[in-house]
Amino acid sequence: MDSDFGIPRELSVLQKHRSHYQPELPPCLQGTTVRVEFGDATTAADPSGASTISRSFPHTYGQPLAHFLKATAKVPEAQVITEHPAIRVGLVFCGRQSPGGHNVIWGLHDALKVHNHNSTLLGFLGGSEGLFAQKTLEITDEVLASYKNQGGYDLLGRTKDQIRTTEQVNAALAACNALKLDGLVIIGGVTSNTDAAQLAETFAEAKCPTKVVGVPVTLNGDLKNQFVETNVGFDTICKVNSQLISNVCTDALSAEKYYYFIRLMGRKASHVALECTLQSHPNMVILGEEVAASKLTLFDLTKQVCDAVQARAEQDKNHGVILIPEGLIESIPEVYALLQEIHSLHRQGVSVDNISSQLSPWASALFEFLPPFIKKQLLLHPESDDSAQLSQIETEKLLAHLVETEINKRLKEGTYKGKKFNAICHFFGYQARGSLPSKFDCDYAYVLGHVSYHILAAGLNGYMATLTNLKSPVTKWRCGAAPLTAMMTVKRWAHGPGATSIGKPAIHPATVDLNGKAYELLTQNATKFLMDDIYRNPGPLQFDGPGADAKPITLSVEDKDYMGRIQELQQYLEKVRAIVKPGCSQEVLKAALSAMASVTEILSVMSSPSSNGQSPF
Amino acid sequence: MDSDFGIPRELSVLQKHRSHYQPELPPCLQGTTVRVEFGDATTAADPSGASTISRSFPHTYGQPLAHFLKATAKVPEAQVITEHPAIRVGLVFCGRQSPGGHNVIWGLHDALKVHNHNSTLLGFLGGSEGLFAQKTLEITDEVLASYKNQGGYDLLGRTKDQIRTTEQVNAALAACNALKLDGLVIIGGVTSNTDAAQLAETFAEAKCPTKVVGVPVTLNGDLKNQFVETNVGFDTICKVNSQLISNVCTDALSAEKYYYFIRLMGRKASHVALECTLQSHPNMVILGEEVAASKLTLFDLTKQVCDAVQARAEQDKNHGVILIPEGLIESIPEVYALLQEIHSLHRQGVSVDNISSQLSPWASALFEFLPPFIKKQLLLHPESDDSAQLSQIETEKLLAHLVETEINKRLKEGTYKGKKFNAICHFFGYQARGSLPSKFDCDYAYVLGHVSYHILAAGLNGYMATLTNLKSPVTKWRCGAAPLTAMMTVKRWAHGPGATSIGKPAIHPATVDLNGKAYELLTQNATKFLMDDIYRNPGPLQFDGPGADAKPITLSVEDKDYMGRIQELQQYLEKVRAIVKPGCSQEVLKAALSAMASVTEILSVMSSPSSNGQSPF
Repeated sequence: MDSDFGIPRELSVLQKHRSHYQPELPPCLQGTTVRVEFGDATTAADPSGASTISRSFPHTYGQPLAHFLKATAKVPEAQVITEHPAIRVGLVFCGRQSPGGHNVIWGLHDALKVHNHNSTLLGFLGGSEGLFAQKTLEITDEVLASYKNQGGYDLLGRTKDQIRTTEQVNAALAACNALKLDGLVIIGGVTSNTDAAQLAETFAEAKCPTKVVGVPVTLNGDLKNQFVETNVGFDTICKVNSQLISNVCTDALSAEKYYYFIRLMGRKASHVALECTLQSHPNMVILGEEVAASKLTLFDLTKQVCDAVQARAEQDKNHGVILIPEGLIESIPEVYALLQEIHSLHRQGVSVDNISSQLSPWASALFEFLPPFIKKQLLLHPESDDSAQLSQIETEKLLAHLVETEINKRLKEGTYKGKKFNAICHFFGYQARGSLPSKFDCDYAYVLGHVSYHILAAGLNGYMATLTNLKSPVTKWRCGAAPLTAMMTVKRWAHGPGATSIGKPAIHPATVDLNGKAYELLTQNATKFLMDDIYRNPGPLQFDGPGADAKPITLSVEDKDYMGRIQELQQYLEKVRAIVKPGCSQEVLKAALSAMASVTEILSVMSSPSSNGQSPF
Repeated sequence: MDSDFGIPRELSVLQKHRSHYQPELPPCLQGTTVRVEFGDATTAADPSGASTISRSFPHTYGQPLAHFLKATAKVPEAQVITEHPAIRVGLVFCGRQSPGGHNVIWGLHDALKVHNHNSTLLGFLGGSEGLFAQKTLEITDEVLASYKNQGGYDLLGRTKDQIRTTEQVNAALAACNALKLDGLVIIGGVTSNTDAAQLAETFAEAKCPTKVVGVPVTLNGDLKNQFVETNVGFDTICKVNSQLISNVCTDALSAEKYYYFIRLMGRKASHVALECTLQSHPNMVILGEEVAASKLTLFDLTKQVCDAVQARAEQDKNHGVILIPEGLIESIPEVYALLQEIHSLHRQGVSVDNISSQLSPWASALFEFLPPFIKKQLLLHPESDDSAQLSQIETEKLLAHLVETEINKRLKEGTYKGKKFNAICHFFGYQARGSLPSKFDCDYAYVLGHVSYHILAAGLNGYMATLTNLKSPVTKWRCGAAPLTAMMTVKRWAHGPGATSIGKPAIHPATVDLNGKAYELLTQNATKFLMDDIYRNPGPLQFDGPGADAKPITLSVEDKDYMGRIQELQQYLEKVRAIVKPGCSQEVLKAALSAMASVTEILSVMSSPSSNGQSPF
């Protein structure tokens, strides 16, 4: 089987054309000399979790941010990396394939070779299992040729998304030692980057010289925090899905007799659903975050959709398109509680056939109410991250079924007077995941590959490669690295009055920010979307001509660039220091002292753990 | 509701760009003078049905072919249409939406206005129901602006695909009279064009001055015969589906643990499945035509797929992609027989709940063997053309279920030694149907719109607009018109020994030609596709750059251009006539007589009804 990997393959005309596309590099990474500026030591976004995190990660917590700058940049204390010895780097695909993953390999390979032609890049075959088994493929120009700017993870393959158990971590350590790796680059989402942080800590503890770098690649778009604006693959997935959603909208409007219920792959958070809604303007989207925040029940949701169907029927509209994130099912409070009971019985080793009889009376009542197909799906074993098997639970069918039942009831009662309700259900995910990556994802991934090299060249361990200011052109992207531990939070669960348990520090999936600008854009337009059928078709993913350079709307409307603003703040602090040098006037010193005392006080209050137990992100 | 139609709407960047695309016209349609050449009177492709057809269509059977040529073309007996009085034309979308439909309206509108600015084009709102109810929208440049080169049928909408019952035909006649239409253009597939032929005949009989023109627009690609090479929408649908299939192939190869079963919309015939297979190279396709020809049972099919899965597992390949046309279910002999019994019980008014108890013992045994979800779907009411509701029957799930059961059995027996078999099922159709049309479909539809005008200007009734030599550039396309009756065949059903019944003449869906070049291409590559994973990704539909001008592979490999060859033959006949003019030598006359006698004899034998009871197409 292994012999199949890396073999040149036949490409279609468009694939060939794409394989010749050369992504641009930001100015700071052009040429062979890069300056590294270290910022202040990092803290955790959640101050209340900081001590837990620092205890779990004594070697890798609190490291400074790193910024990569042009060699000519005038920054005090920046360090120019001049030595580039030949190094050996391993790379592994962890978790689900996202369009653009291959370009991280390409970028890393180019950066390695341009700095020292004797450096070696080894790809692990078959994902984490290849890492444990030390099965590698040396990445060369020949191997890369037919994989540049192409989708999938098929150059190396992937298996499980976990490097977590003691056996797994030890196997990884053994592999890195045996292969004499200077660096290990892990490509993946929240789970894989949490594992990367753990590996980095373990390696540091074990005095293993291999430095671990994480790269944010996940179609879910949920690896988002103050350092990471978006993920490789998210743009492509949303574009492909939006094309299909728009096609279905056009279809609905042409035939005027169907309601389409479309579930979107994207795990717990609703980023994909939100982005696709802003791109294609379907009639409705039910974000898991809204449902969780308002504690909407299955009954509430059904009523909400039925009311919409009824209102539209009153305007003679008997068609529509409704988006549902796959994570929705876990956001509905009573279903979540039921799933927790089922998963707990799984953990106790209760067989699937016996689970339903051992549910609490309340959970059992809900379970018995549900149609058979969904019962079977809810009983599936949970995933590695303890969530339900979201891709297998047909929430769209459940909702369509409940809505149909309720609409038929209203029809009998005479409150609904529209045409017969016809639902068609879809799940969009697998058919988008293997797409050719968009230009944005090609560029983003390729540059992240380069940044990964510079992280290793700077000798950093337990960092994630980051690019910020992404909504601007590539020439304005900021290249940096942030410690993985700075992205972690610690979850607390209330188990009844007064009793809480504390989870392990982890990088958790970011949920849709209900106070953010993207969500605001949705709420401003929701009524128009619902009633006016202002469907918009972004069209199929283009590589030339109009639309080829489009970026996610959710990325473009947010004022992100946290790293840029951190740098801006540091410039202010430098300026104050420069002005208030010994010898300055009493008045200047007095004004500075007074102003800084007040700033410090405000910020102290704002960042104390008690003021904000929640993660601000 | 009606007020929504034709309102300018907001377009995405790409939609706007596309709306400015101007399709080219073949040289013969450029300028305002077109020459019409009439060929010989047409016969029916199926000689044995000719008399039945001629009896059913006394006014419209046997009309000549028409070719549209440049005004300067030197063809004897061609007629230049010089008068272009203002005319009133109605247009109706019949049947399922296919990408490109809007461009037929645009082409027809442009042709009408360029020849006489006072001509009027009326679109019927809501398809055939709008025709019956005389609900129209006048097509203007303003109305068209945001619909040029856009997908869907939403400019006018559509409802049922039938104009067939006496009430419907009379309502159509009344509408055409009331609106004083000179022409009625019907946009649709095989069913709608059969209805168009019937309308033409009825109108001629009733001395209604409205001429009826059909336009071949159907995503199924099954309106194919000696005059029609492909249909508007087929190219787009196959490109969108192939993109998704390829994405799934890439996904399969990346994770190496899933078998994808993908069912494709396309009605009874397997044209979409064949084209998509040639574009994306999935591991397997099960064409309905092969199954019908070899009389493969459900058991045979299951075994065939299981053997493939097992052979792949022996090469350590535990993933794959299998395509299934939605019409497959009706091609399986025993399932077809079961469906016939169910539909017959439906016609007898037996309620759904009672059908299963009234099946014959043999059909009942098969029915009881099937899983519950498929039972429910088989019991659905048949469609207007008496076929099952193919889009609702999840054949892919049935097959996946049967294969899983068999593979698990082989696993126990030790004959299958691969990994656990995991199937994921998809149905691709609705998400492709509303796509922005490909450049080819935009061009094809726009030019067909122009041809429709010239058919009306030439005063022809009961014709279909045709373009041939489509695999060449637009400048080489041949424009013509063929009588709808010439595309008809008459079906015979054997009801036991000696007893046959004869159907009504109709344009029947063309099946995949198992002797054709496209199928040959498939059989030559089938083993490589199955075992070697030579997946190919044509990528998302492009409008600029490489791939934007691609045409269907099945179109490109066939030597079609029947109309061109008919013209070529006529040129030979003309040459013989010119050579053998009175006054020619005895030798020449003798040679001509002898040669032509032999040609005539051969052709007479070949076209006698007894030599070939089957339709040659």
